[in-house]
Amino acid sequence: MTGAYRTKEAAPQPVRHAVRGRRITSYDVARAAGVSQSAVSRCFAAGASVAPATRQLVLKVAHELGYRPNALAQGLISGRTNLVAVLISSLTNLYYPEVLAELTHRLTARNMRVLLFALNAESDVDAVLDQVFRHSVDGVICAARLSDKQVRLFNDHRVPLVLYNRAAPSASSVSCDSAAGEHELVGKLLAAGHRRFGLIAGPEDSSVGEDRRRAVLECLAQAGIADPPMVRGDFSYESGARGLRRLIEQGGSFDAIVCVSDLMAIGAIDAGRHEFGLRAPEDISVVGFDGSGPATWASYQVTSIRQPVRRITEAAVSMLTDRIDDPTLPAERRLFSGEFIAGASARLK
Amino acid sequence: MTGAYRTKEAAPQPVRHAVRGRRITSYDVARAAGVSQSAVSRCFAAGASVAPATRQLVLKVAHELGYRPNALAQGLISGRTNLVAVLISSLTNLYYPEVLAELTHRLTARNMRVLLFALNAESDVDAVLDQVFRHSVDGVICAARLSDKQVRLFNDHRVPLVLYNRAAPSASSVSCDSAAGEHELVGKLLAAGHRRFGLIAGPEDSSVGEDRRRAVLECLAQAGIADPPMVRGDFSYESGARGLRRLIEQGGSFDAIVCVSDLMAIGAIDAGRHEFGLRAPEDISVVGFDGSGPATWASYQVTSIRQPVRRITEAAVSMLTDRIDDPTLPAERRLFSGEFIAGASARLK
Repeated sequence: MTGAYRTKEAAPQPVRHAVRGRRITSYDVARAAGVSQSAVSRCFAAGASVAPATRQLVLKVAHELGYRPNALAQGLISGRTNLVAVLISSLTNLYYPEVLAELTHRLTARNMRVLLFALNAESDVDAVLDQVFRHSVDGVICAARLSDKQVRLFNDHRVPLVLYNRAAPSASSVSCDSAAGEHELVGKLLAAGHRRFGLIAGPEDSSVGEDRRRAVLECLAQAGIADPPMVRGDFSYESGARGLRRLIEQGGSFDAIVCVSDLMAIGAIDAGRHEFGLRAPEDISVVGFDGSGPATWASYQVTSIRQPVRRITEAAVSMLTDRIDDPTLPAERRLFSGEFIAGASARLK
Repeated sequence: MTGAYRTKEAAPQPVRHAVRGRRITSYDVARAAGVSQSAVSRCFAAGASVAPATRQLVLKVAHELGYRPNALAQGLISGRTNLVAVLISSLTNLYYPEVLAELTHRLTARNMRVLLFALNAESDVDAVLDQVFRHSVDGVICAARLSDKQVRLFNDHRVPLVLYNRAAPSASSVSCDSAAGEHELVGKLLAAGHRRFGLIAGPEDSSVGEDRRRAVLECLAQAGIADPPMVRGDFSYESGARGLRRLIEQGGSFDAIVCVSDLMAIGAIDAGRHEFGLRAPEDISVVGFDGSGPATWASYQVTSIRQPVRRITEAAVSMLTDRIDDPTLPAERRLFSGEFIAGASARLK
């Protein structure tokens, strides 16, 4: 009776009991099904040979135990982890979260997983690069600044890389055409008769910000306006408000403020409106760049260039997966035109 | 001469040449160093025994070849992957990106990596849960809605789980106290004499939105105001603007609009200001919830409850890592009070 009692107690969940407190592995399934561990592995590997009866038994036992084949182990065996590292600066995500959301959706739709690295500053890549390589990711999308040396590391490690909104020699990249966008914006302001320009630029370590700053200065120089007053912000609302304040306090008198991001333009519009009684566009024209959500809000309606985020993220993901499938593909740079948004924050005639 | 020529060509990079086109593994290092693969593994494992001379040789060869121990392989061996899955809805991230940025920084600071799952809708969890479990993550932080059955799956798989801004029986969770916050906001509106309330609630599948909606209705019912006019939005600016429009078009006349998120409050303020000539707070009081960035902008200054995001994310990460270290810890629910922000969008006396 004692023996029968023990059996009765133990029978319903012999393996569950044995593995309590840790995860169920292919070895547990093999033991419960009375087959080898390699037979279990073969049942979950695409195209592997295994007898139909064995497969049926293994799948049944695996289901009963709640076993799932380990994606990491499968990745190590197949050489494909389906992990893609996304490197993005916190600022990019705080002020432009659509980029990360779109990238994640598009990668998920292709059965890839996102390993997220959020950097404090764009120049902070070194701190995470070692971790990126150690996780055997299939590829990397980088929306943070990489040095040429860092780009070469990706080549050395044979990890496909696509740069987002920045370019580097010998690296694949997708970007919105900052130069063309600023030329369009500043050109329209010049055509409408603006002459007293102020510039609110981005941080020095932002390649997007610097691309835009250079384009604005070049465009103004072509019109005979050299070295307009300039301050730097960090793309935030607060830094845009502070930027306008500093430009005005430095004694400047402006008819147009060019901000290299929409959030800084919104900050400048608010500082003008609430601190200096300057209405945009009646008293001062303010333009931004990005076409981000708040720029379209009724209280701002920022005159801007809208980045085609969906097209750019789709291009980034398809270029990356192409290079994961065929690492011999040459690097490619794709440049997308932004769309002019007339808005209502700048006088355009 | 032919033999010498061949040797001369091959000598500088004998292993690099052999592994061109794929990543360098511990087997490549073992071959180049003339030791066994397990010796290479031991050199990179904490506390493993290996002769000093062997270690020195292996580390030198590994460095020359650019070999890095594989984090996934180490994770499979040790049972710790240092991966944490973060489940977040796109809407949460689009309208409140600070949460993901803070979680990622805090996890990175603890040497954990974020495996990001962005859901289209809060109720979309089933689609990703299988992938979460298959990646052997050490734990999960979930800012999307889980059913009780889904919560039990985490227990069954022995994967520590912390819910973010929502609670479930037998699950650990961190939340901002929605009910207390709404009671404070609505209480102040009532005390200032408001009686004609309209409510802009969230989507039905958002537990945060529903918590807030219930609290608002309860608070109004206690003051004798039953079934105030209500519309639902999706937390976006546009849905807040549409919400005010619909409330007014339904023939309502309001002295206070309670929105369960700041972005909807901003949309309602803008629709009132630009479409109906209703200024907040002179003509209508509008309150929100969250204390998100745009709510503090000079053109809005939303009267609101600010979630203590840093404290909540810090609590989520430390509760999770505690449970990864000791899976026997009991579930714990932590509720953080929000901070009242007077703002300037509601008449409070």
